Amino acid sequence: MVDIATRVHNHNWKIDPIVRSLIDTDFYKLLMCQSIFRNKPETNVEFSLINRSSKVRLADLIDEGELREQLDHVRSLSLTRGESTWLRGNTFYGKRQMFRPDFMEWFEGLRLPAYHLEKRDGQYELTFEGRWPEVMLWEIPALAVLMELRSRAVLKEMGKFELQVLYARAMTRLWEKIERLRAIPELKIADFGTRRRHGFLWQDWCVQAMQEGLGAKFTGTSNCRIAMRRDIEAIGTNAHELPMIYAALANSDAELAQAPYQVLADWHEEHDGNLRVILPDTFGTEGFLKNAPDWLASWTGIRIDSGDAAAGAEIAIRWWKDRGEDPTKKLVIFSDGLDVAQIESLYTRFHGRVKVSFGWGTNLTNDFRGFVSGDRLAPFSLVCKAVSANGRPTVKLSDNPNKAMGPADEIARYKRVFGVGEQVAQEVWV
Amino acid sequence: MVDIATRVHNHNWKIDPIVRSLIDTDFYKLLMCQSIFRNKPETNVEFSLINRSSKVRLADLIDEGELREQLDHVRSLSLTRGESTWLRGNTFYGKRQMFRPDFMEWFEGLRLPAYHLEKRDGQYELTFEGRWPEVMLWEIPALAVLMELRSRAVLKEMGKFELQVLYARAMTRLWEKIERLRAIPELKIADFGTRRRHGFLWQDWCVQAMQEGLGAKFTGTSNCRIAMRRDIEAIGTNAHELPMIYAALANSDAELAQAPYQVLADWHEEHDGNLRVILPDTFGTEGFLKNAPDWLASWTGIRIDSGDAAAGAEIAIRWWKDRGEDPTKKLVIFSDGLDVAQIESLYTRFHGRVKVSFGWGTNLTNDFRGFVSGDRLAPFSLVCKAVSANGRPTVKLSDNPNKAMGPADEIARYKRVFGVGEQVAQEVWV
Repeated sequence: MVDIATRVHNHNWKIDPIVRSLIDTDFYKLLMCQSIFRNKPETNVEFSLINRSSKVRLADLIDEGELREQLDHVRSLSLTRGESTWLRGNTFYGKRQMFRPDFMEWFEGLRLPAYHLEKRDGQYELTFEGRWPEVMLWEIPALAVLMELRSRAVLKEMGKFELQVLYARAMTRLWEKIERLRAIPELKIADFGTRRRHGFLWQDWCVQAMQEGLGAKFTGTSNCRIAMRRDIEAIGTNAHELPMIYAALANSDAELAQAPYQVLADWHEEHDGNLRVILPDTFGTEGFLKNAPDWLASWTGIRIDSGDAAAGAEIAIRWWKDRGEDPTKKLVIFSDGLDVAQIESLYTRFHGRVKVSFGWGTNLTNDFRGFVSGDRLAPFSLVCKAVSANGRPTVKLSDNPNKAMGPADEIARYKRVFGVGEQVAQEVWV
Repeated sequence: MVDIATRVHNHNWKIDPIVRSLIDTDFYKLLMCQSIFRNKPETNVEFSLINRSSKVRLADLIDEGELREQLDHVRSLSLTRGESTWLRGNTFYGKRQMFRPDFMEWFEGLRLPAYHLEKRDGQYELTFEGRWPEVMLWEIPALAVLMELRSRAVLKEMGKFELQVLYARAMTRLWEKIERLRAIPELKIADFGTRRRHGFLWQDWCVQAMQEGLGAKFTGTSNCRIAMRRDIEAIGTNAHELPMIYAALANSDAELAQAPYQVLADWHEEHDGNLRVILPDTFGTEGFLKNAPDWLASWTGIRIDSGDAAAGAEIAIRWWKDRGEDPTKKLVIFSDGLDVAQIESLYTRFHGRVKVSFGWGTNLTNDFRGFVSGDRLAPFSLVCKAVSANGRPTVKLSDNPNKAMGPADEIARYKRVFGVGEQVAQEVWV
């Protein structure tokens, strides 16, 4: 029987919205947002979309009108009562009332600020400017909208059965990965794939397949909406935007050198346990750890998000040992461009030496490589980053010079201040 | 929105019926039924289920109660008004009113006769006895019920996502076959996969995938219900039961020698064009063609259903040439245990020499090989055959001694009468 009401209701949609909830975003954005809301609420920032895969000409693929409709739809969203209840009442990382009442009240009234969109050279220039806690919430929905519109542009040429077989192939591929992961005895792995997902429904499928296929080895998802809907853990800690903007706000080289530690000092006041995870690579891991204050060695773990992942973990282990800490009690979260082979080899190398954990992103939620001609569904490297704060440019060095960003003179200054020498370049593909 | 009515309605089903229509059967059964209804309506026959894959222990896998419920459900079916209208009004093989009013009237009143079911040695003994035109209609639903109950027995142990991935794999495999078939320039191929299908819904999916993927190269399906529902050609001519039963009814060796030709003489009166297709292998192709009356060489084509397919086609080509016929105007239908590689090689060898056509069965609608442990979803060789007619045993020799059936002394007699010498054994897997 046809459900006439559903059919008629569906006709009322002007568009098929990609992002349908303000919490269809990464959990760490909300944690960081609350921290910013408390510590730097008035900072004026600019975030900008950056397509590192310049041969994917987004403005040729995606209609500007459709993009605007999707972005306008995101701006129309506000927190629903159920979402608010979940954020206020749910336990995150074992803690009740993770989100404070003043933050929740502000969040309940929030609509995302305006965007600025232009076409240039086959690409979209998409920027967001305003108060940091508002603008920063654009990052994930903006990326998800662009990624999914690009998928749709390719999919709309395909027949019904061709489409079904496309998803059949993607399901088979993911399931074969899950079967390999299942063989890893004490695996801990979470979905970090919201930002560069093929599409929302596909991410939701991937999460459920991980649940069924991995059981307790699957520790949760970074996506709040899916975590709420599927009743699983929301996962995430903090990201590069905090040290990048704190650094941009520094008034001297001395303040700049301290900025990344100030971020973590603020974090230290708010969070404990598994939320105390260092992200050391913003301005180079080696120098960051060498100059870190002693209290930081007591933190629970570290997240390795650029450079040679094994080398990064070895540096962290040496650092903990130097500071008199027991690495076997420490958490190492690998989260940079992982796929199964790398997960297996990192697990084998570090299991028993540290507590190993994985945040699996693009190769979980968008591995459509090789499925269509010209590989037009392969994931690509799209980011949305803070580019300035209170009028000053931001800088990221990373442990991979191909991920560095910022004006050349500022990069040189940061390298000097943070004592970054030679770096090994790694190909960036997501 | 939940469609409450559909949910409640679904609760009313006592079982999930496998065969839901009397025309969920092969088209050639209806053509043959009409022929039998006219020529031999009072013949008393027995059909029996034969599992040639004895290591698939059906009675251990399938609950007897469930099997009886499914078979009882088939007995409750009668032709619907829409089905009757379609059979009466549709054009088959370019002909209107293929089914005569007296046959349709009889068919509209038909319910399938009783069955006899027993368990023995881990297998089911399932037999049907009665008037030939009624009993013969049990063949396809009985096979489809057993095949699908076996699938269900394996599937019920699987998780939701494991199941989805299973079908994803099957879809991917079929689509890759279709992509290979699409590359064959003048391919003509039909679905012959009803009897040993994985399940009804899967066959329906396969047919639609063939439609989208092959376009005009896909000539139709043997399944009447799917042909009607998907508005495509119903395909099929005649089968071994006709010569087997005509032969069993013969009162002397001389009559026996003529029986297979009498079948085709009766068919000749009823049908022309593409329905005049010889099935020569029941008692050995070589002798059948050698002793055939001249009028048979004028028939449109031949179906190769056992033995070495290429050798069979070469024999037919020589025979047509010997009888002064032009083989390039003749149709050769290959239908025995085909898969893509064999279709490609038969096409390459015979295209241009004859009109090549394929009836693709089990490897189209039930290729689940290698998908579950112990290969418990792999197709197996189940048939439902006429074993006696008016109390006399039937015999089939075939071009493959592994497909021969009947009492040993009768097989010897038939071999003598039909002049069958040495035969090459071929493995039977479906």
